[in-house]
Formats: sequence, C-alpha cells, structure tokens
Amino acid sequence: MIRITRNDAADILKSADKILILTHQSPDGDTLGSGYAICRALRSLNKQANVICGDFVPAKYDYLSEGIDIQDFEPEFILAVDIADPKLLGKNLSHYGDKVDLCIDHHGSNTGYAKKLLLDDTCAACAEIIYDIINILGVEIDKCIAECIYTGISTDTGCFRYSNTTANSHFIVAKLMQIGFNYFRINRRMFEIKSRERIEMEMRALEGMEYFLDGKVAIITLTKDMINNSDPGELEGITPLPRQVEGVRCGITLKQHDDNVYRISVRTGHDLDASKICARLGGGGHKCAAGCSVRGTRDEVIDKLLNAVKDEMSACLKPDEDNIICRPTIDDIQGMDELA
Amino acid sequence: MIRITRNDAADILKSADKILILTHQSPDGDTLGSGYAICRALRSLNKQANVICGDFVPAKYDYLSEGIDIQDFEPEFILAVDIADPKLLGKNLSHYGDKVDLCIDHHGSNTGYAKKLLLDDTCAACAEIIYDIINILGVEIDKCIAECIYTGISTDTGCFRYSNTTANSHFIVAKLMQIGFNYFRINRRMFEIKSRERIEMEMRALEGMEYFLDGKVAIITLTKDMINNSDPGELEGITPLPRQVEGVRCGITLKQHDDNVYRISVRTGHDLDASKICARLGGGGHKCAAGCSVRGTRDEVIDKLLNAVKDEMSACLKPDEDNIICRPTIDDIQGMDELA
Repeated sequence: MIRITRNDAADILKSADKILILTHQSPDGDTLGSGYAICRALRSLNKQANVICGDFVPAKYDYLSEGIDIQDFEPEFILAVDIADPKLLGKNLSHYGDKVDLCIDHHGSNTGYAKKLLLDDTCAACAEIIYDIINILGVEIDKCIAECIYTGISTDTGCFRYSNTTANSHFIVAKLMQIGFNYFRINRRMFEIKSRERIEMEMRALEGMEYFLDGKVAIITLTKDMINNSDPGELEGITPLPRQVEGVRCGITLKQHDDNVYRISVRTGHDLDASKICARLGGGGHKCAAGCSVRGTRDEVIDKLLNAVKDEMSACLKPDEDNIICRPTIDDIQGMDELA
Repeated sequence: MIRITRNDAADILKSADKILILTHQSPDGDTLGSGYAICRALRSLNKQANVICGDFVPAKYDYLSEGIDIQDFEPEFILAVDIADPKLLGKNLSHYGDKVDLCIDHHGSNTGYAKKLLLDDTCAACAEIIYDIINILGVEIDKCIAECIYTGISTDTGCFRYSNTTANSHFIVAKLMQIGFNYFRINRRMFEIKSRERIEMEMRALEGMEYFLDGKVAIITLTKDMINNSDPGELEGITPLPRQVEGVRCGITLKQHDDNVYRISVRTGHDLDASKICARLGGGGHKCAAGCSVRGTRDEVIDKLLNAVKDEMSACLKPDEDNIICRPTIDDIQGMDELA
C-alpha cells in the first residue's frame, strides 16, 4: 500500500478509465454521496464509470443516482470510497477486497487494503476529500454533484451537529450553496421524515425507558419480539434515544438476543468512556459508543451494567460535561457485532 | 423611522454609550445570541451595556451571558435586536416600545417602530447582521462572541436544516469555527436534550396520532388536561411532529381550548398552503405554519378540517414535494394567538 496525496489521486483518475466505484455495506449518505459525486465528475470527463453497493440502497438516497444509468463495461480500475476495511464491502462485493486500485477515505482506522490510499482523517466526511479532487480535476461542480457532496457532509456530521464538524465542512457547504440546490429537500429526507413503523418503535422503546443512579443512567429494553418485528435500520435509530434525556450521562439499550443473552449498546458523552464501561463486561468499542454482550435475566444484566457504570464513574474524575454528541459510525456497529 | 446601513449602525453604536439592549419575549437563541454578542462587543470598546428580556430566560441559554454581570447605569441609548414588532417586547418591557433608538432585525414583517432601523431580511438570523457590525466596529471576535453568534444562526436555521439557511450562514459559521469554541456543547443543548416531561408529552401526543386521507394528513389531539399539565414551551415542540411522518403533507395539532373550542395548528410543506387551509376556517398565518380556532365536538372539528384540507389540495395543483421544512417563527405563534 502506498499513501498518496489529493493531487496524485487526481492524476491517477485522469489517466484511468472504465472505473468501478465501490461503496460500503449498510450504505450511508457519505459513501453514496462520495461515490456518485466522483462518478458524475468522471463521466463529465468522458470516462466510463459505475457505482455499486453490495447491499440494498434505501429509496431515500434515490436522488443521488438520478440520471446515472448503469454503463456496460469490463472494469479496468477499482476505486473504493469511504471504506475503512474490505470487510465492509459485504458478502456480495467481498471478491473485490484485494483488487482495489485506489481507496479514498477519512477513517483513521483504514486497514490499508488498497494498492494506493488517499486518507485524510481530519475530514468529517469522505465527500470533503472528493470535493477537493473534483476541483483538482477541473470539473465544474453542478447542482447534482453539489447535492451528492452536501449529502455526504451533512449526514456524516449529523447536519453539522457532531464534534467532527470543522470550519472546512462549513466552507465547502457554503461554496456548494452558492451553486444552488435543494438542500432543504435533502435535509427533510435525511433528518426529519420517519416511517410510521419507526415512530411506533420509538414509542414502544421510550414507554419502557427506566432511569437509574439519580437519573444519570437511562435504559431502554428491546425484547426479542420487538426486534423480530422491526427493520434493522429502524432499530439503529433507537440507541441514541436514552442519552437525549436531560441529565442522562449514560444511555443504554438492551437488545434481547436470546432468552438469557442481551446485546448491549452504551452511549456516553466525552465525560464518561463507553468503551471502558463495556470493557468491564468483556466488550469494547469507542469512547462515546461501545457494546458488549451480557448473560443473565434482564434484572441481572441491568445490575451488572449499573455496577460497571458506577465503577467507571468513580474511576473517571471528569465533571459531567453533558455536552458532546458522538457519531455512531459504521466502525462502532462493526465493533459491537464482533464483540457479541 | 429611517432605514440605515450596517456602516451607519456601527457609526451610531460607536458614538453611543450606556446602551440598553432589548430582546423579545419567549426569548430564543437568535434574540439572546444577538443581544449578548453585541453587548460583549460594546463592552470591549469600554462602553456600558446591558441585555434585558421581559420574559423568563430558560437555563439552557446560560452560557450566552456567562461573565456578563448587570451594570448599573441610566440607559441613554435603546437598542432592540431581532424584534419585529414592539408587541413582542412583552408586558414587562412594553414601555420601551416607542423609545427604541435603533432596531437591528431580519424579519421582513418589521413594523418600523424604531427611530432607526437596520433591516436585512435576506439573513437567516439577526446574529448574521450582528456579526457584520462587530467586524465593522473592529472588535476581535473571541470565543464567547463566537458562541453567541453561532447560537443565533444555528437555532434560527434549525441547525442549518431550514430553507432560510444561506451560503453566508455557512461562511460566517466557518469563520467562527476557525476561532474555536465548543459548538457541539451548544448543539447538544439546543437540538438534542429533552426533559423527561417533554418526552412523556411527545409520547402521549404520538400515541393518539390519527391518519386521514390515505395518510396525507396526520392529526394529534392535546386535551385540556394534557395542556394544563404542561409547560407551554414543551407544547410548542409538539406541533411539528405530525408532519415528520413519511407521506404526511399536512400535519395538524388540535389543542382543546374549551370543551367545544379547539385551537388548531397546521403545518405543511411548500406544496400545500397552510394559511389558505386555515383561511377557509376563519384563520390565517404563513405558508407552512398557520392556525385557526374551530368550534364543535372533536369529530366535528376534524371533519371541518379535513374538508378544508381536501378543498385546498384540489385547488392547489402543485405536486407533493414532501420536502420543505419551514421554521415556525415567533410571528406564526403571534399570528395564531391573535386568530384564536
């Protein structure tokens, strides 16, 4: 693997053709936005390029690929965008894992699987790097490319809320907005609309929310029944809810995996380390989003969790900042699955 | 009333002293952020300046006034920020209504009550104008001023989601972020944390949500009991909920005012005009947020509302854009109160 610069990447793409662009499984706005932005730019340079994803792409992302039909060609160059690890290609695309010519990514955890790697982990979104490359390529950013890049940045920053947002994220978006595009349509799709099922799921989860340790811990339990009757994507939206409650430093979601096995998601602010709490129970993850798997009845599991939280709270002397929103990343989810 | 420019306003403030800064009732992030930003800038020029509000200021805004003690002086200059109408000063400050020397505002509906008016309704937030004035005054924007201006812009744009957000909003925020401040702490306070009461209120409201006209209309009913047991601020958060549901073009909240009188809030996208729906029932308001008052049993009221929605849907030929988020403004709420 060779680390390269933005200019190198632009040069390589300039001389490439028949480019297959890979996006990651459980596709999000950044991998798809990055993929379709660079695909549109490459096509405007009269190159052949396709974007593929090994997973189902939710309908809410339809506009990113509008007008981008699948072209018929044998790929000569494989480009991966926003993919930290070949495992994230998913089963259907796993055969490309050792064939990636260039990977463009912003995850510090990138495994270096590609022949060439353009990595900038100071960027909130991969789409920010793609924006720079398109400019270096000399391609004019039109409304469609602007929508793709905006989608990548806005979704990866939680609409500019998360602590990964930078001045540069806002500068790029300001420049995109001067081009003019329907950003509020995108925002409504990405951040406002919920399906009826999602709303019902949230209500059932919130109904059963319990508070412990003077309201510093909130716990939601999702039973096997609730899980089996839900879309996994909807389920992911539940885990941030307990931490939204005023005064809660540690939000926990219990997912009943089997009668006496619970998969646990823990969410904290920067004042309390979720990964350390989970490590006390054999799990791990990131500072603000971690996971573990605990055996026992629900009461026993909650007891173990509360003990781990109490121990970690007394070990950590930081004041309650009650302040920081962490973005649960694909890596967290991946990490949590591996721990279970 | 004389309309003035940003440069004029800066000149006037340069020669003023003992400045009393007025903010509007039901204070929000923009009026308070604008007020404390300019107050901090004026004090750094060795002027005396205070910010006052006629209403209770929620604790979540505490950081805006951190370190800004009340100074003891007889006001010689009255400055109003983000106040479109002297009525919005509220009872406690109403005596200042005809004494405002300078009003800085971004509401097109400004009544022109002040002696001098700096109005720019292309700005998403009053804080954007304040940012320019502070720069013209030559005051260095420190972390505290940056937090105040960021709060104004982020709250008035729904964290950059609403259709009023401009390239300039993002440019200013990019420049503020280069100064460095804890924006994610602000975002958590403004956009994430909910009180337990708020969550319970939302759940009770959502539990009773009903769908009509093939799911294009969603209605929430708040009974007299629910209203009497709630903080009015929490109630305001309920009205956007029905429109969040996938497929809903018209979200309606019924607030039981008396046994047979309901106050109605209607929320739509730009594809359907809420004010026209409400006008059919003797009310009015804005395109995306309007209100009316309807007599009858709950069933009768819903019937009347659905007829008005159906009539307006057939009168309006626009396709369902399902897309636009409108910011309910102080003006909407004001308008709706007056209509009831």
